[in-house]
Amino acid sequence: MDFRTDFKPLTVDPDKIYEHSFATILEEYGPHDFTEDEWKIIRRIIHASADFDLGRSVIIHPDAIEAGIRAIRSGKAVIADVQMIESGTGHKRFQKHGGDVYCYISDEDVSKAAKEAGATRAIMSMQKAAHLHEGGIYAIGNAPTALLELIRLIKEGVVKPDLIIGMPVGFVSAAESKEELAKITEVPFITNLGRKGGSTVTVAALNAISLLADQA
Amino acid sequence: MDFRTDFKPLTVDPDKIYEHSFATILEEYGPHDFTEDEWKIIRRIIHASADFDLGRSVIIHPDAIEAGIRAIRSGKAVIADVQMIESGTGHKRFQKHGGDVYCYISDEDVSKAAKEAGATRAIMSMQKAAHLHEGGIYAIGNAPTALLELIRLIKEGVVKPDLIIGMPVGFVSAAESKEELAKITEVPFITNLGRKGGSTVTVAALNAISLLADQA
Repeated sequence: MDFRTDFKPLTVDPDKIYEHSFATILEEYGPHDFTEDEWKIIRRIIHASADFDLGRSVIIHPDAIEAGIRAIRSGKAVIADVQMIESGTGHKRFQKHGGDVYCYISDEDVSKAAKEAGATRAIMSMQKAAHLHEGGIYAIGNAPTALLELIRLIKEGVVKPDLIIGMPVGFVSAAESKEELAKITEVPFITNLGRKGGSTVTVAALNAISLLADQA
Repeated sequence: MDFRTDFKPLTVDPDKIYEHSFATILEEYGPHDFTEDEWKIIRRIIHASADFDLGRSVIIHPDAIEAGIRAIRSGKAVIADVQMIESGTGHKRFQKHGGDVYCYISDEDVSKAAKEAGATRAIMSMQKAAHLHEGGIYAIGNAPTALLELIRLIKEGVVKPDLIIGMPVGFVSAAESKEELAKITEVPFITNLGRKGGSTVTVAALNAISLLADQA
């Protein structure tokens, strides 16, 4: 097919769209004390949500960014609670470092075990991930039950992730699960307080770290 | 592997989690004038975002829900601007009616055409979708440029979607693209005002309509 190219005078250059967006976010956010790398996480979260309140609710553990970069560069697994995160971040950015992103929530054994237990598939998918991978980055943007199960597995010594990006959204246990995460001492984390969150902002944080991992 | 099932006393039953969430949303939203079906869209959007402001910014065209149900039941294509929407809604819910969900943003010809034009892949993916499908539901949750291009293609008579769910997010053209959508008379739409939006809320609206299409 023939593609048409008469778009002016809209802003349609992807690089310019990012540049304008980040400038607007910095201006409207106002003065901040973040490090340069932390700000790259925060501004991407705001970019993905257009929500400054959500951006201001983010907590970045002091070791989180460095741990995330190290994990990606050494080809550790990235585990997503839902497929939206897997497809939103994509495989290429991890495969080039020898790693990959995995999501087990739709696996047959996970579904079967969840149905039998009357529990969420998200819970069982965390058990499966902890069983299959040594460490890794856990990116949880949807299911509070996944995050709570992961925290339990850490407390019991079953798994020790390199980093948790935990930003589930919702009205049942979401805020509570993130408060639990913000208290853990075993693993560095990126999270936010309150009910808001979701797959898109979790992907935003993960992709920001992967861009940092790509830098020389 | 053996899955563990000792979760009590957390709420881990997926049906109960939805039930609690929807009850909380209704209570906190307060009185409203929506039809029963409209409310099912609104509450899912709030459920996916935990954002009442976003929920209150939603506009549902009076013909939107019926048009969406009819399109799904007659096996029309669902076109997503980004893969996150494709994976978030899934193929099964449309395949059982003879349709499917498609996303062209990562196609090689789309990438190539976008690079050559210095435009977004989202724009070219809309052109490709309009070229390949008669009507259908367009679900745009990420790229304002996709929505603006789709509106242009409609105005020029190139394509006539059955329904547009247009809720792109961001700082460049997102709010403007949705204002344009809210003005069109050719096609029913679901949209929202302002910068907020995104793939998760777009999926929420789409899935709510697909659940209505499944009802007898």
